[in-house]
Amino acid sequence: MSNNPSFVLRSIEDVAYEERPVPESVSDTEVLVAIKKTGICGSDVHYYVHGKIGDFIVKDPMVLGHESAGVITKVGAKVKHVKVGDKVAVEPGSTCRICDSCKSGRYNLCPDIVFAATPPYDGTLARYYRVLGDLTYPLPEHLTLEDGAMMEPLSVGVHSVSNLGNFKFGQSIAVFGCGPVGLLCMAVAKALGAKRIIAADIVPSRLEFAKSYVGAEPYRPLSPNKDEVKLDYSKRNAENMKNTLGIEDRGANAIDLVIDASGAEVSIQTALYVVGTGGTMVQVGMGNPNVQIDLSQLMTKEVAYKGSFRYTHGDYPLAISLVAQGKIDLRPLVTHRYNFEDAIAAFKATRAGKSDDGKDVIKAIISGPNVSPNDL
Amino acid sequence: MSNNPSFVLRSIEDVAYEERPVPESVSDTEVLVAIKKTGICGSDVHYYVHGKIGDFIVKDPMVLGHESAGVITKVGAKVKHVKVGDKVAVEPGSTCRICDSCKSGRYNLCPDIVFAATPPYDGTLARYYRVLGDLTYPLPEHLTLEDGAMMEPLSVGVHSVSNLGNFKFGQSIAVFGCGPVGLLCMAVAKALGAKRIIAADIVPSRLEFAKSYVGAEPYRPLSPNKDEVKLDYSKRNAENMKNTLGIEDRGANAIDLVIDASGAEVSIQTALYVVGTGGTMVQVGMGNPNVQIDLSQLMTKEVAYKGSFRYTHGDYPLAISLVAQGKIDLRPLVTHRYNFEDAIAAFKATRAGKSDDGKDVIKAIISGPNVSPNDL
Amino acid sequence: MSNNPSFVLRSIEDVAYEERPVPESVSDTEVLVAIKKTGICGSDVHYYVHGKIGDFIVKDPMVLGHESAGVITKVGAKVKHVKVGDKVAVEPGSTCRICDSCKSGRYNLCPDIVFAATPPYDGTLARYYRVLGDLTYPLPEHLTLEDGAMMEPLSVGVHSVSNLGNFKFGQSIAVFGCGPVGLLCMAVAKALGAKRIIAADIVPSRLEFAKSYVGAEPYRPLSPNKDEVKLDYSKRNAENMKNTLGIEDRGANAIDLVIDASGAEVSIQTALYVVGTGGTMVQVGMGNPNVQIDLSQLMTKEVAYKGSFRYTHGDYPLAISLVAQGKIDLRPLVTHRYNFEDAIAAFKATRAGKSDDGKDVIKAIISGPNVSPNDL
Amino acid sequence: MSNNPSFVLRSIEDVAYEERPVPESVSDTEVLVAIKKTGICGSDVHYYVHGKIGDFIVKDPMVLGHESAGVITKVGAKVKHVKVGDKVAVEPGSTCRICDSCKSGRYNLCPDIVFAATPPYDGTLARYYRVLGDLTYPLPEHLTLEDGAMMEPLSVGVHSVSNLGNFKFGQSIAVFGCGPVGLLCMAVAKALGAKRIIAADIVPSRLEFAKSYVGAEPYRPLSPNKDEVKLDYSKRNAENMKNTLGIEDRGANAIDLVIDASGAEVSIQTALYVVGTGGTMVQVGMGNPNVQIDLSQLMTKEVAYKGSFRYTHGDYPLAISLVAQGKIDLRPLVTHRYNFEDAIAAFKATRAGKSDDGKDVIKAIISGPNVSPNDL
Repeated sequence: MSNNPSFVLRSIEDVAYEERPVPESVSDTEVLVAIKKTGICGSDVHYYVHGKIGDFIVKDPMVLGHESAGVITKVGAKVKHVKVGDKVAVEPGSTCRICDSCKSGRYNLCPDIVFAATPPYDGTLARYYRVLGDLTYPLPEHLTLEDGAMMEPLSVGVHSVSNLGNFKFGQSIAVFGCGPVGLLCMAVAKALGAKRIIAADIVPSRLEFAKSYVGAEPYRPLSPNKDEVKLDYSKRNAENMKNTLGIEDRGANAIDLVIDASGAEVSIQTALYVVGTGGTMVQVGMGNPNVQIDLSQLMTKEVAYKGSFRYTHGDYPLAISLVAQGKIDLRPLVTHRYNFEDAIAAFKATRAGKSDDGKDVIKAIISGPNVSPNDL
Repeated sequence: MSNNPSFVLRSIEDVAYEERPVPESVSDTEVLVAIKKTGICGSDVHYYVHGKIGDFIVKDPMVLGHESAGVITKVGAKVKHVKVGDKVAVEPGSTCRICDSCKSGRYNLCPDIVFAATPPYDGTLARYYRVLGDLTYPLPEHLTLEDGAMMEPLSVGVHSVSNLGNFKFGQSIAVFGCGPVGLLCMAVAKALGAKRIIAADIVPSRLEFAKSYVGAEPYRPLSPNKDEVKLDYSKRNAENMKNTLGIEDRGANAIDLVIDASGAEVSIQTALYVVGTGGTMVQVGMGNPNVQIDLSQLMTKEVAYKGSFRYTHGDYPLAISLVAQGKIDLRPLVTHRYNFEDAIAAFKATRAGKSDDGKDVIKAIISGPNVSPNDL
Repeated sequence: MSNNPSFVLRSIEDVAYEERPVPESVSDTEVLVAIKKTGICGSDVHYYVHGKIGDFIVKDPMVLGHESAGVITKVGAKVKHVKVGDKVAVEPGSTCRICDSCKSGRYNLCPDIVFAATPPYDGTLARYYRVLGDLTYPLPEHLTLEDGAMMEPLSVGVHSVSNLGNFKFGQSIAVFGCGPVGLLCMAVAKALGAKRIIAADIVPSRLEFAKSYVGAEPYRPLSPNKDEVKLDYSKRNAENMKNTLGIEDRGANAIDLVIDASGAEVSIQTALYVVGTGGTMVQVGMGNPNVQIDLSQLMTKEVAYKGSFRYTHGDYPLAISLVAQGKIDLRPLVTHRYNFEDAIAAFKATRAGKSDDGKDVIKAIISGPNVSPNDL
Repeated sequence: MSNNPSFVLRSIEDVAYEERPVPESVSDTEVLVAIKKTGICGSDVHYYVHGKIGDFIVKDPMVLGHESAGVITKVGAKVKHVKVGDKVAVEPGSTCRICDSCKSGRYNLCPDIVFAATPPYDGTLARYYRVLGDLTYPLPEHLTLEDGAMMEPLSVGVHSVSNLGNFKFGQSIAVFGCGPVGLLCMAVAKALGAKRIIAADIVPSRLEFAKSYVGAEPYRPLSPNKDEVKLDYSKRNAENMKNTLGIEDRGANAIDLVIDASGAEVSIQTALYVVGTGGTMVQVGMGNPNVQIDLSQLMTKEVAYKGSFRYTHGDYPLAISLVAQGKIDLRPLVTHRYNFEDAIAAFKATRAGKSDDGKDVIKAIISGPNVSPNDL
């Protein structure tokens, strides 16, 4: 096989299929993966629409995609845990292994990370992707390649809830924002033994889904009053949320962990009013980064407010383990499936949040070249 | 002696000496302390000036003062670690011992805490104070009662730097705000083996003191430009600070822990720009609680931003240990000493930040009745 | 009702029912519990047979029993989380609340602990038991009083597996000894997401039970050779165990946590050979305390070998939470039920490990006075 | 310079200088170090005398030495933190960087570690040693190359006391065995703020040194009685030690951390009797690995007994930081210095524990070829 069709972002809203060379060889520690399934993430869409995220700017044509699974086709001499033909989930960030962050188990903070589809590095929406062998995780027999692609966003949830949030069996969680990451945070919390899961979102259909998917208690925020100062609104909204759901600051009805997966300022403010005394708040959603918060909440409740960035050592294995044990079912989240040739439709639907037939998009998955969307 | 003269706040800026009854007895677990030295804290002054702090409102006359040391005069039957005549530092917050916070070692978060000079509870500016025995800590022979009174603000520093900040030997710290708490945070960091201590303040004399006291590298913030957005200013200020002092985001020149002891919005913003990747930021200063921060800093650096509230299990013992071993010298911080009868002058000087002779106030200490300020 | 019939150990193998006074009042922080169900523990039997455990010697008549649940009949003024009529599990150790161990969340190490049926303190096999209110835990509606009594041994498992063993979702565990505590350790590990559970015991029927109860992989130890040195045997046995079950020292097939719930020297030795590199071993079973171990295992694998003593802050709540969520089913463990009048039969059956009809005893439960064993 | 003289162990007690080729190049991530100072360790001597340690057997000629410092002579393209001419301490274990142990910050447990002078890998007693760049640590100006060589055993102490022992300011430590590692454990504890340091050894001169070096309280064990069972002796010895020094099981006079740096069974037994309730015991000395312990101590005190193996992420940097800040003075430990040509004399003196002039050996250092022992 001599070609490697790749889905390339050339400039804003300008994508095309290019023939890239097939990697001829792998180093001792690398593998070559034939990509079979790739989920579309908000960041892929953001590059497609804006050509950049913060300081990361697409200057040269870049292959998109980073939520992928596939089949091993070449194995470096020192890679022992996989062999040709294995189905694997692909972790898309290669790190230096020698900096302090890498050595201390927080390799997501490595300054030299090569992350798929973060400029200037190519992503995984291609026939082949070459990657460090230890970043490929064999999938148990009863998991699908779609499950494998979903391990990437699930690892984001694992990182926020388990790694940073240190969520324990019997604790309670509230998640603001019911997009894919918010839902996966709830799924992780449920699998780890949440007593209560509270879901907040302004879209009723998303709350309905959260309720049916993980048994979340839904909360639809109040509407702000005209000219109401945001923090005033958020405090009022939080009081209403606490009264409605019987949330208290301490004890059995307190919220141990709050996740903001929305990035919206009023959500973040509300979340900080809702989190219990001594609790933790994890920020995983990003919108306008400049937000006002009420420090008295942080201080008198001694909250730890933590930023979450991708995932790190142990997150992929835990994600796979949770699904392998049947504690998380990823299938309900895959609402749309596309042929490789129709990748652009997947981007458009994800951007709109709806496909042409009006169906809400949670996660759209693009199959690899010559792979049928029906073959999971 | 049959009376118990007490320094009472009756209403805003209205204080007086009242004769309160001497506690006739102590329970099995209590002690009675003859108070000898009491430091004046910003919160004492705040009640004096405003009659409240947040939701804590002085409705009935309240004895002021909570940074105290004294001599044991009565001992409950079950209290074994002190005896009559012992010099002790007094921890001023009695907690319930049975709530989750108390049982888990975070008793500062106990909802039923009885804290000296936080309404409606009387403080320690009196001849006698009755308190739970285990909240009195014997002072080693070579420490003074003034040292004992200083253990309270020092414990605030210990809590922020060691307990919440988890500061380790060889790490670097930056402290924003060079008041008593900021200075004590620096002193703790130095005692625990700080590689670098950076002090930021707008007042040159305070920076000078930080430099001479703990060898801090001083940083005086830039002036904001006219109409400059606060976050823009703070980002610019942080860049200047990093360039000036050779601070980087990672590696040997990164700042592991940032403490904001100022409560000023631009300080907080700057601090978040300055803290290193994977680092921790602790908020111990409180001003206007509504502050805007740049979440992209929290997220891409995976910062843990923690609110600090008083002190808890282990903080007083560590504070005493640091001073007992000679790693912290508290004497340079006590700039002003007053007779019990002159308490109001101590409040006025602390409020002004200067005594009548123009000398900067770091910490003013009021002696107990019949105790000479010269007797330390 | 004016009397308080109590099952009292007078001296070795000499027990009798005594009428003890009903506690007339409770303090502000206490409650009075009408005991309904009490499980019999190996330590109860040990006192019955030997009159002592280590340095704890029964000198005066002592009420037996400490694994109890009941119904609240009086409530102290400051106890807010339960009311008269509530079904509760009773934690049987009252601690001082003011020592370092108590304040730091390790109250099981309090030197002044008053533990039911540990001499000289009376136990719970009576109509009424007075206890600190915060040591009573309300049972959710769908849990039985028998479940409540079982929370005590389950908390031992929680303490060993979760608190000391820090067991995480997806890890593997091996438990040596399939008595009640061993089985409950396995149940906790399963509920927390164990990938593999390995059970070792010399009794085939116990292995069978472990397999059916939690899906454990059974291992029956080799027989020692004549004159074989114990450590030689244990090493050989461990190699056989590893080969048979595909256990490796590192990676996916390694054992993260080993629990010895047998107290047998060869089990302990084998366990240390089996635990994976960087793993943890928890000692919860006690036999002859003088055991020989192979330190080279401790050192080259950097094992943490931890002694486990009862349970502490957070263990009871987690135990209840695990059962309340349906992750642990305690009913299969209760093999025998007795009337209060037949308490001695319960002791004899537990001592023999079998009842007269030849049925293996896992846990025998004695009902309170006037309570039917059929009323769970 | 074209040659690379190396000190080679050919077989038991058969050593010789061989000319080995100078490494011609370094990879992108490696450096070449001109070795200047190498300390002799007990393990070097053990290989020299026995040809093996446990399962590590010297089958082919092997260069000895692993405690080294030198000067960088070549730098790989990707190594940025050192340059040619820099004085560096050399960490002697190269690891795979991709296994779970490496990624989680416990790289000492990497199964593929290439450790200097552990067969089959050559050591550092040569003119040149090639090593991964990130394993070389620049020495501050005021530190000597001898200090640099001493960082290896100091890191063993750091690992035991700080990393595994989690030693905190104000805690108390007891160290059994006053050889180099024991002394360095004490030095680390002192630098981190030990309240009490207790040193136990059977050799009075070693106790004297510990006292003068770190202010340790010396304890000389009792002599065993004829036919006394070891555990009986150890319990008696521990009681004597506790009475003599005022050690208690709990509270201010308890020992938080016990280190056994002797490897002797009776020391280990005594140590476990001496460690305080809730304390930690770290095993860093190795003798006959089969030791009997009293499990009742482990269990009722809930001790964590941890094996210590070399050092890992963060240990070298902390070691250097402790010396750079002047908290540890390594010079008094270097009792003997040798020319490269006299290496065998260093081995003989270390083996005997005394040089020919009768002076006790703590640490002997061999200079590199053409380096004077007087040039530190």
